[in-house]
Amino acid sequence: MKKSKTAVKGRGEIPSDLEDFLSKNDSRIHDELFEFLRIPSVSAKSEHNGDTKRAADWVKNALDKIGVPAKIYPTAGHPIVMGEWRKAPGAPTVLIYGHYDVQPAEPLDLWTSPPFEPTMRNGKIFARGSVDDKGQLFLHIKALEAHLAMRKKLPVNVVIIAEGEEEVGSDNLAEFVVEQKELLKADAVVISDSAMFAPGLPSILSSLRGLAYFEINVQGPAGDLHSGSYGGAVVNPAMALARILATFHDKDGRIAIPGFYKKVREWDPRIRKQMRSLPFDDRTLMKETSVAALGGEKGYSTLEKLWIRPTCEVNGMLSGYTGEGAKTVLPAKAMAKVSCRLVPDQDPADIAKLMKAHVAKVAPKGVKVRVDTLHGGRPWRAELNGPIYDAARSALRAAFGKEPVITGEGGSIPVVGDFQKILGAPVLLVGFGLPGENAHAPDEWMSDENFRLGMRAVATLWDEYGGKAGRGKSEEVEDDRD
Amino acid sequence: MKKSKTAVKGRGEIPSDLEDFLSKNDSRIHDELFEFLRIPSVSAKSEHNGDTKRAADWVKNALDKIGVPAKIYPTAGHPIVMGEWRKAPGAPTVLIYGHYDVQPAEPLDLWTSPPFEPTMRNGKIFARGSVDDKGQLFLHIKALEAHLAMRKKLPVNVVIIAEGEEEVGSDNLAEFVVEQKELLKADAVVISDSAMFAPGLPSILSSLRGLAYFEINVQGPAGDLHSGSYGGAVVNPAMALARILATFHDKDGRIAIPGFYKKVREWDPRIRKQMRSLPFDDRTLMKETSVAALGGEKGYSTLEKLWIRPTCEVNGMLSGYTGEGAKTVLPAKAMAKVSCRLVPDQDPADIAKLMKAHVAKVAPKGVKVRVDTLHGGRPWRAELNGPIYDAARSALRAAFGKEPVITGEGGSIPVVGDFQKILGAPVLLVGFGLPGENAHAPDEWMSDENFRLGMRAVATLWDEYGGKAGRGKSEEVEDDRD
Repeated sequence: MKKSKTAVKGRGEIPSDLEDFLSKNDSRIHDELFEFLRIPSVSAKSEHNGDTKRAADWVKNALDKIGVPAKIYPTAGHPIVMGEWRKAPGAPTVLIYGHYDVQPAEPLDLWTSPPFEPTMRNGKIFARGSVDDKGQLFLHIKALEAHLAMRKKLPVNVVIIAEGEEEVGSDNLAEFVVEQKELLKADAVVISDSAMFAPGLPSILSSLRGLAYFEINVQGPAGDLHSGSYGGAVVNPAMALARILATFHDKDGRIAIPGFYKKVREWDPRIRKQMRSLPFDDRTLMKETSVAALGGEKGYSTLEKLWIRPTCEVNGMLSGYTGEGAKTVLPAKAMAKVSCRLVPDQDPADIAKLMKAHVAKVAPKGVKVRVDTLHGGRPWRAELNGPIYDAARSALRAAFGKEPVITGEGGSIPVVGDFQKILGAPVLLVGFGLPGENAHAPDEWMSDENFRLGMRAVATLWDEYGGKAGRGKSEEVEDDRD
Repeated sequence: MKKSKTAVKGRGEIPSDLEDFLSKNDSRIHDELFEFLRIPSVSAKSEHNGDTKRAADWVKNALDKIGVPAKIYPTAGHPIVMGEWRKAPGAPTVLIYGHYDVQPAEPLDLWTSPPFEPTMRNGKIFARGSVDDKGQLFLHIKALEAHLAMRKKLPVNVVIIAEGEEEVGSDNLAEFVVEQKELLKADAVVISDSAMFAPGLPSILSSLRGLAYFEINVQGPAGDLHSGSYGGAVVNPAMALARILATFHDKDGRIAIPGFYKKVREWDPRIRKQMRSLPFDDRTLMKETSVAALGGEKGYSTLEKLWIRPTCEVNGMLSGYTGEGAKTVLPAKAMAKVSCRLVPDQDPADIAKLMKAHVAKVAPKGVKVRVDTLHGGRPWRAELNGPIYDAARSALRAAFGKEPVITGEGGSIPVVGDFQKILGAPVLLVGFGLPGENAHAPDEWMSDENFRLGMRAVATLWDEYGGKAGRGKSEEVEDDRD
């Protein structure tokens, strides 16, 4: 058991055998990554369907080669690759998820080097998919290889899936997860498809906001009217809509829909304190978005507003005449797309009820108002406690030499909720991207240092997790075999 | 002077010679009207350019025939026909304005009888242009004919112009009026291109609202942002716009832009009382527009809201994603078209200043707001006193057997302001249409009774006006010639 000694102690050191392997093979590993990045597996474009299939085959072979036998599962869209290694009876099982498809590379003329010709510049690997998500998927494969090469075994049972439709909505993933529920059963799900808060600052993504998306339609007169002949007596639906929307927030930026905050779970003050202490400057965000001031809910820091507080936003608005010049129309109708970002434990269905009741109450007489729910998604929040999180903290500390920070994400990643709901397992979101990585833009890059440290962090993670969560049984098994 | 005896007394009776002429020639007059209505002079459609020219020629000939020599004045668009009769030195001069062009007839399948085949049904003359404005222009020509046929002269000097672009914005009229200012010089302008308030209720249109039309642009971030990643911290320009628009009215429907009502001239309480006594039912308007309730400014009747009170309406609104389904975008910008209907003595330039100052004050931090003025027009209000109005009251009483009512119009007719401003003459708006006449819709009609009474009313008007305004001089002149 000498090989895994460091690991089972949980002291947060990279096991030396794994470090040796990864160092010695660094050049080959980079060559392989570059080969993977050269495949233009753009899932959104059917002209790349051959490339996307080639990328799936490439991942399957990469898994087969390291000793994690893989299969390709066709879907209605692009296939899912699944590799399995289940030779650690008694040890916990982890499900690793990543995706091999990439965003379109356009506009091509804004790339400094060609998007599918990976190029190293200033410690950054430039290529479409470098960080999102081929590089991060690949570092998991290499971490597994380190274990299997050095020890002929893994400290955990592993199921790894790579999908080819993440960039186009993961339309077939949830169905696959439901169908393969038994095969995918795991004690923890680990996903590396996000970014660290800042260079050198390992991060655990602890929350995702949910979504309740509505379309509000205000119907006034049966048809457009002449604003001179009818204006002043017939209620203007666009003005009515504006007045309705204006009731959604109070003057402090707090959402004024009655009951809206009722189910918002408070955060641990220590986590909030840590969030407020993160190296973040409002001016950076202002500069990035070209605004002269930020807004939002009073009493919260910008990161808290983005991560742990719900919102109510207008996503679109349309009424009457919007072409050039002046047309004196009193519009027949007005429409707004409105969506609320939700935080635990808000429920999209509850919010829909509150929204509908509120709009019905504030809508003026003389117009008919309809609120339709277009889309909903539950918010997600990691418990941040338990073996996988403890192991992650330890592994990240080992690789980066720093205590990981807890971050949030204002957007929604439906797959996380799906995994947690369908498989009932905690999800660990540990990503190695960096701010400014241009994930969906020209000149996408991944920090080469993060790629290396990421491999080491997850390689260490399996020792930490296998050692901690499955120590007893795992060691027994190892004893049997060793 | 026996012929005009009735007239100069101003007792409101149709002079018997004119009545005789109009009765005896009724059938021919209708034949001529129908011939005029058969010309599809649709100014908006270039395929009808030949017809529009034919209609201009037809009007010129109709004027020549009755003894009002006419000329055709080309413009950059459709020509203007001008006829002149100036043989009553010392008598006042009237400028009669009408238009020979018509709205497009589409949708054709909604017409009961073909739009350019005039058909009499239930006392209504159905045809495109019957009431707007060929029928009303033609009744003026026939009233002049009655005078000239029976008396070989007119009690007033007459300039009559018929334009061919009223339905497409009268683009070339103002320039023509400026150019021909000397020829068009008149003591009063008379226009019959409006409707009576109700059947049997002769009406003088006493006011038109002006217009101040704005485009409000709210710029948030430089580009559309992900509403999850940025929502809650970056100010949403669509929500900002809604909140700005919501400040334009208070809860009583009164416009809340500071200073907005400062220049609103109060109406004579007697006129307001008369307006409130007009046979008008809110339910009719609600049914017509398919709304369950009316709105607007508290403390005013619906007609007052439409005629004598200013408004602030949204004419159009656009922001972010307005297609099908859900897109989670925090829009970069939002736009609203907003227009205020103005009443005397509000000034569009003043209102623009007030609007800009108000928007700048209420705009939230974090967005840039720009207010552009697109269009402005002054409100208009008749003095309702003076010889032309006295004469009109008397003539309408004579023809309809009822005291005329004073009505207003919520829309704007720029040509009225142009005439008043360029020529410095009072404008009398006396129309013979009726509610429900489908002026711009299929099955346009003019009441045949109103066509006949209209001819008699304006024929009487010239006696009343010539007799009153120019009595002294006019009689001297007549003495010279008679």
